[in-house]
Amino acid sequence: MTDTTRILARYVVNARPEDIPEAVVHAAQRCLLHWIGCSVGGSREESVEVALAAVAELSGPRQASVLGREERLDITHAAFINGVSADVLSFTDTHPQTLIHAGGVIGSAALALAERTPVSGADFLNAYLLGYEVACRVGLAIYPWHYNRGWHITGTAGIFGATAAAGKLLGLDEKHMVWALGIASTQSAGLREMFGSMCKNLHIGRAAQNGLWSALLASKGYTSSEHSLEAPRGFANVLGEKPNLDAITDGLGKRFEILQNTYKPYPCGVVIHPIIEGCIRLASQHPLAASDIQRIKLRCNPLVIELCGKQKPASTLEAKLSVYHCAAAALLAGKMTEQEYSPSNIASAEVLALRDKVVVSVDEKIREDETHVAIELNGGETLSCHVDHVIGSFEKPMSDQDIEQKFRGLTEPLLPKASVDRLIDTCANMMKVGDASVLARLASLL
Amino acid sequence: MTDTTRILARYVVNARPEDIPEAVVHAAQRCLLHWIGCSVGGSREESVEVALAAVAELSGPRQASVLGREERLDITHAAFINGVSADVLSFTDTHPQTLIHAGGVIGSAALALAERTPVSGADFLNAYLLGYEVACRVGLAIYPWHYNRGWHITGTAGIFGATAAAGKLLGLDEKHMVWALGIASTQSAGLREMFGSMCKNLHIGRAAQNGLWSALLASKGYTSSEHSLEAPRGFANVLGEKPNLDAITDGLGKRFEILQNTYKPYPCGVVIHPIIEGCIRLASQHPLAASDIQRIKLRCNPLVIELCGKQKPASTLEAKLSVYHCAAAALLAGKMTEQEYSPSNIASAEVLALRDKVVVSVDEKIREDETHVAIELNGGETLSCHVDHVIGSFEKPMSDQDIEQKFRGLTEPLLPKASVDRLIDTCANMMKVGDASVLARLASLL
Repeated sequence: MTDTTRILARYVVNARPEDIPEAVVHAAQRCLLHWIGCSVGGSREESVEVALAAVAELSGPRQASVLGREERLDITHAAFINGVSADVLSFTDTHPQTLIHAGGVIGSAALALAERTPVSGADFLNAYLLGYEVACRVGLAIYPWHYNRGWHITGTAGIFGATAAAGKLLGLDEKHMVWALGIASTQSAGLREMFGSMCKNLHIGRAAQNGLWSALLASKGYTSSEHSLEAPRGFANVLGEKPNLDAITDGLGKRFEILQNTYKPYPCGVVIHPIIEGCIRLASQHPLAASDIQRIKLRCNPLVIELCGKQKPASTLEAKLSVYHCAAAALLAGKMTEQEYSPSNIASAEVLALRDKVVVSVDEKIREDETHVAIELNGGETLSCHVDHVIGSFEKPMSDQDIEQKFRGLTEPLLPKASVDRLIDTCANMMKVGDASVLARLASLL
Repeated sequence: MTDTTRILARYVVNARPEDIPEAVVHAAQRCLLHWIGCSVGGSREESVEVALAAVAELSGPRQASVLGREERLDITHAAFINGVSADVLSFTDTHPQTLIHAGGVIGSAALALAERTPVSGADFLNAYLLGYEVACRVGLAIYPWHYNRGWHITGTAGIFGATAAAGKLLGLDEKHMVWALGIASTQSAGLREMFGSMCKNLHIGRAAQNGLWSALLASKGYTSSEHSLEAPRGFANVLGEKPNLDAITDGLGKRFEILQNTYKPYPCGVVIHPIIEGCIRLASQHPLAASDIQRIKLRCNPLVIELCGKQKPASTLEAKLSVYHCAAAALLAGKMTEQEYSPSNIASAEVLALRDKVVVSVDEKIREDETHVAIELNGGETLSCHVDHVIGSFEKPMSDQDIEQKFRGLTEPLLPKASVDRLIDTCANMMKVGDASVLARLASLL
């Protein structure tokens, strides 16, 4: 048996902020800012309101902020709610090799803890980065079997990242970090069957909350198996099949998964993005009404139908997982924002008419960030477009300016303009910030 | 696709106390009393102390009792701690067809909630029974593949029972009960790799806590998939293989799994019990010292080695999963109580000497409640004994008097004698009790 869990724990315990390469610091700062934007932007959605109503009566001391709002909760419940809001718009960051949306899981756990136990910006960013690395490395060991089986990998692998980040902030030594990862492993959960319901958001919130909780338990001496990742009946063999454990430990401190991280230009399932981009491109070239169009033919990667094949979405959450709605709405509006997922737009006669004209064919040879869109008009003409790499993909990343613009779009309706400016500035200079919890104060309304 | 989740939810929502057959009422009362004994008896163990130290700072309003102790916690944290203490002595009840120890999971969730929201004894016992049925039926659908894969089924299936019991006490309608079961399904977790560490107890505590929490979230309108159990990527297909979904819905209200429930005479892994009984029988017939014995030969079911094969246990938790320690200690002491699992007894020279003389051979044809013990003495003589059905097995159940005696042994060192008497009396008359939370007051020290 390998010593995967211990090697990983040792790395997390020993990693120092001053050893992070500059490009990695930059990537971590982007990821952090982006998450805060998502949580603030999502903070008034129904999934957040209902979750808050349920946990408010259970909360302990009001130690930590709920981003975008006035409430305060104990650190674990704050981590939960901020995780739910991070995911609710489906506007998350994505690690393309595993489809993990790690930013919100790690951030929600780490920032809540930083409000209880003061920490410098450099130590915070280091913990945040380590959490990201742990989550994605654990994911790499079990992807794609794990995901295909039906596990929501952001929840199942994410909890390890939240645990590692929280454990680092708590200053756990190697023994206690091994236990913390073990406690996390035995709570890892989340089913893809929940996509389209509020429970998809719950997975992100619970991964953050339970990861933080695992680190807290371990810090008091709660024990677990010391081979939780690699044992024959440990995490990777039970929730995975023939796991690649080397992916967890190879190149620790040298290979940084966060450099692969991508950001969504549209608030929906990432595999639909090329199609939206193609439809927006065609709409900007040719103003079209539903009545002009006979058929919309899409050729794309099979994951589009597997993950986002809802033909008749009835809610915002379902519409974000419907390639049919997305194509029709993007073509009609020439853009794809929260407005295009509003209940009224989902039920509009023109969107419904066009949605039924969408025909999807899948082809293994078409990459996940690629698509072919062809619009057959009533007059016989066909408009077509090939999206080779979608905006936000690894090959065509969102620039810092794109992310800042996205952040402003998410936060300006809810936070004072001065706070938005200071959040952008603070994240860009995290290595010099004295107290990381300033992020929570700026991003909430108390 | 079947409608398993909805059928199960509908049954739980509609089931009435007045429809429970008398024998089932009796079985549920035994199970309830037995659980309270286990939680009180375990309430001072290290796993409980450490867990309490970790969650005390997170607890919300002090609504509910910690059994056997003075602390109070919010209802979810109380459910967690009472679940940990229920399991910590490994003295639990067992549903033999699935190896689920349901009593503590369901009781910890239901009793904490009953302290917040008053409920009659009859309604409480009805909810408790329904929780038991749901947990074991879900377990039957996925056992044995699920357990063999490495899942700790008391945690993974137990959460459904805690959710059903709490949802029933909250008065959820069918729609909300379906959501509650869905929220439970996507948090189901717990790895057998944790056996021998405190995390084994954590599974029981978290199943209780998270089950209660799932029902609370659903009660506020938090949504989930409506096919969480049966969907192609739902619980049973992801954590099971070719599940038998009919086992969940067949004979609801007619077949009661709680009638199968068994109780342990010894505080350790149930598969070792026949061996302990055999050793105690031989010890009572022939006083033996370690130096008299050349070899202890055990023939037993393969699960003994698979579940309890620790050859050199170093802690109480490990000793409870060591057939080697159990055989040696039982033979030397002529009994098997917490004392025989104390750190000093585990490390005693005589136990260690005898432990190394234990030789186990396994045979598929020997049942789990059966064993053959042969002790080869230095003089050449062999003492042997065949245990056909161990005490506590379905065929040779513990009587009400046995359970009362076990309950007294667990609680009298910690609770006032009058409280112990009243707990026994109250559980035996639950259908007539006005306020079920009296159990919590009697079983705690505030």
